[in-house]
This record gives sequence, structure tokens and C-alpha cells, in this order.
Amino acid sequence: VTLRQLFVDARGCAGPLDDADLLREALQAAARSVGATPVGGAEVRYVPHGVTAVQILAESHLLISTWPEHRLALVEILLCNEAMDPLSVWSVLQQVLQPADTEVRAVLRRIGP
Amino acid sequence: VTLRQLFVDARGCAGPLDDADLLREALQAAARSVGATPVGGAEVRYVPHGVTAVQILAESHLLISTWPEHRLALVEILLCNEAMDPLSVWSVLQQVLQPADTEVRAVLRRIGP
Repeated sequence: VTLRQLFVDARGCAGPLDDADLLREALQAAARSVGATPVGGAEVRYVPHGVTAVQILAESHLLISTWPEHRLALVEILLCNEAMDPLSVWSVLQQVLQPADTEVRAVLRRIGP
Repeated sequence: VTLRQLFVDARGCAGPLDDADLLREALQAAARSVGATPVGGAEVRYVPHGVTAVQILAESHLLISTWPEHRLALVEILLCNEAMDPLSVWSVLQQVLQPADTEVRAVLRRIGP
């Protein structure tokens, strides 16, 4: 199976880029919205600003890094279940981040020998 | 600043793809090898096999996902410090994973407004 890993560069974000707990919860909500299962993860809030939050899933992972000083969030979405649409995950995160401008790219990753 | 995020698909791995603790330690060692600072993270071992391990850094993150049944490891490397070479991080991980075949790709990510 070949999966589409998504990379979203979200600029001009009006959302709470400095709230590590909220961003982690957003990742969990986004995962559940496509039926994925959160199984672990972590978040770090940097000083003076910025967050990295990762949600490990039964189906791989979601990750967000933020630079509040630039209103920038970088997002990664990898779902190892073809029935789960990574763009649906992004649409949930987009509602939280509220970017003015987004660039979505994909890297194909083949799961197999 | 524009950073090069690396994606490595490592196939035919002879290394310990099912050892979550060891993979997490490998991420930390790889980070330190370029002067990066581990600040958090998590790892999950799946049943019956496979691992996702993430190391959050002061300079962003390293992540590895494994499929032991395919001898496959997917690696992501993002370092928000231009003086730190992501390929050097990969060279440390490569020694642990011992892949027969690797594909290295990069996605450019611009940190700024």
C-alpha cells in the first residue's frame, strides 16, 4: 500500500499557536474525526513562544510545530489506513489554526518490503 | 530561513525495529550528535509489532515509524537550526537501522511570516 503523507504550511494563523494543551487536544479531535485511535504522544511549549505537539496513533501520527511570532504552523499527517482521509484531518485542524494561507504538499510513502 | 525537512524510507533494515526504547535512545543520540537538545517525546510499541518513536527537540523534532514485518523504517528529520545537518542525523540513525536500501527526500519549509 502507498500512503500520502501530508505536509501543511499554514501562515497567518489566527488560532492559539502558543497553547500546547489545546493543540494536542486538536490533534486528538482531528484523529478521532476520521476514526483514528490516539495511543500516545507529547507536547512541548518553548520559551519564549512556540509549541511542538505530536499525537501518536494506532495508524501512525500527527504533528504540529508552531512559530507564533510568524503566525506559522507546520503540520504533518500520516495515516496508515487508506480509508482515512488525511485532508479530513487537516480540515479539522484548519478550524483550530485559522490560517489565512495554506500550502498542502504530499509525499508518497510505500508501506511494504 | 528555509529549512530542509528530510524523509527517509529505509528498507531491508537489519536493526532492532521492534525495540521502542532503543529507537527512542537512537533518536536522542542522533540529535546530540549535531548539537541538538532533546526536550521531550514519546514512543509506542504496537501489537503485534512495530514502533512509532518521536523525539521533540529544542530545534523541532525527529520521528521514526517501523514495520518490522516489512523490515521498513520511515524517518523524519526537521532541525530549525541551519548549522545542524539533517543528513548527519540520518547517518547516526542509519548505523542503528542498518538498511539495505534507502531513499532520502526533502521538503523545503520556510520559517517566516
